[in-house]
Amino acid sequence: MTKHSTHSADWSDRLRVHGAVDLRAIDTSGTPGVLDKDAAEEIFDGTSRSLAKLQEKLFADSLSGGKRSVLLVLQGMDTAGKGGTVKRVAGPMDPQGITHHAFKKPTEEELAHPFLWRVEKELPAPGHIGIFDRSHYEDVLVPRVHELISSEELTERYAEINEWEKRLVEGGTTVLKVMLHLGRDEQKNRLLRRLDRSDKHWKFNPGDVDDRALWPLFQDAYEVMLTNTSTEHAPWHVVPADKKWYSALAVQQILDEALQALDLDWPPADYDVDEQRARLLAT
Amino acid sequence: MTKHSTHSADWSDRLRVHGAVDLRAIDTSGTPGVLDKDAAEEIFDGTSRSLAKLQEKLFADSLSGGKRSVLLVLQGMDTAGKGGTVKRVAGPMDPQGITHHAFKKPTEEELAHPFLWRVEKELPAPGHIGIFDRSHYEDVLVPRVHELISSEELTERYAEINEWEKRLVEGGTTVLKVMLHLGRDEQKNRLLRRLDRSDKHWKFNPGDVDDRALWPLFQDAYEVMLTNTSTEHAPWHVVPADKKWYSALAVQQILDEALQALDLDWPPADYDVDEQRARLLAT
Repeated sequence: MTKHSTHSADWSDRLRVHGAVDLRAIDTSGTPGVLDKDAAEEIFDGTSRSLAKLQEKLFADSLSGGKRSVLLVLQGMDTAGKGGTVKRVAGPMDPQGITHHAFKKPTEEELAHPFLWRVEKELPAPGHIGIFDRSHYEDVLVPRVHELISSEELTERYAEINEWEKRLVEGGTTVLKVMLHLGRDEQKNRLLRRLDRSDKHWKFNPGDVDDRALWPLFQDAYEVMLTNTSTEHAPWHVVPADKKWYSALAVQQILDEALQALDLDWPPADYDVDEQRARLLAT
Repeated sequence: MTKHSTHSADWSDRLRVHGAVDLRAIDTSGTPGVLDKDAAEEIFDGTSRSLAKLQEKLFADSLSGGKRSVLLVLQGMDTAGKGGTVKRVAGPMDPQGITHHAFKKPTEEELAHPFLWRVEKELPAPGHIGIFDRSHYEDVLVPRVHELISSEELTERYAEINEWEKRLVEGGTTVLKVMLHLGRDEQKNRLLRRLDRSDKHWKFNPGDVDDRALWPLFQDAYEVMLTNTSTEHAPWHVVPADKKWYSALAVQQILDEALQALDLDWPPADYDVDEQRARLLAT
């Protein structure tokens, strides 16, 4: 975000994390900023059109030497709707300018490297919007819940992440971080639905039930992570996620605001338009 | 395609290349297989929905160990509509399961490697649909037109490509190749439109006019390439591309037929559904 931008950042301001985070104080079924589903879908559809245009500008900018890119990091408990949000928000944009990566449990090779190694490789090129479904933040969540590393190491990782993201931002990447904040009961409903439908069985993992038992530990880990890594240059947003239409809208609006703040114009021609027209007409 | 598939392959059969190719004999403004734009859009919208489901099945299949993937190669002259086709066809699918790569002029590093090196790196993972906007076929088109390599080397490259694609197919990748066949006059119109609109100037390159002067040489290079690399395992399709609605529909239908031919089912649960439901309800 540029400091003196005249663009609105209502959604980002509304959902942005400040200071110490208390997740229990944030209603997972809330819909701050919009009245109901109908209103949400009207806004969503309108923004889908303008967002596709902004993305094209970002892409065009890079072809004439611009270094700007956007990284959208999505985190959340199982079934929080990360995949569905990507699908809805990115769907209307040009796949040419989107880089999507879903981070799984680290492989042996990945574990043998510093934890940012595998993430670095997936960063969006200039002109691209990169979307991370899970991210380097798994490396401060899972180790904390399962007590795999010391609290000193955790603190070092937070600092390392903050510095690394700062360099990204200085290099021209807008870093947007969103936690999809799901309620425990709603997670149960969503997992049950996966068990009820044979076309959803592949999405279910017995491990999801194990993780559910660790729910309070995960919430704690999220709170500490949000508190320690929400920075001026790369703030976290907590988006209530019990209503899928709300989380899709909120993520879309945060992305749209960030793209608007880049104040991009169509790059001017680096050739003489009339001369090229004459050449072309002669062919 | 499985040999005894009961699925239709009408579009693939209709547009597939057989034997020696004469591009001048194929009307670039034709619309084989569909009456008009309205009919095309009705078919397109219906298939968009079923295609998204098929893509999800392909993705699900890979999570339970399936090795299948699909590679769609798009080639064509400048402004043939490769980017727009990707956008329309891939738009309704889940970005999570799509890998898109636009190949540019090779870099120094890429030129220092065998020509298939940079392509190999972008192949779709199991469960993914990979889309190539330009491809390894640039390496038999451009060198032929500009006489950068000998005809023996070209012949070797065709053979190398055929063998390499055969290995891909044996490894579980369905390889679909499409040439968007644009008319020379329509290219002129499209280039002029890019010059007429300041929001399209970034898409225009003076080099496009240079390439236009080499049109007959490029058409020859395409014909020889199509004739030499359309194989049983990885056939070429020539899609008339003067009408954007037609080329989008044809590419979509070819992709849809290929996915249908995989005969994918939702993978069965590899856990006891009732047991997991009981565990979940206890949480």
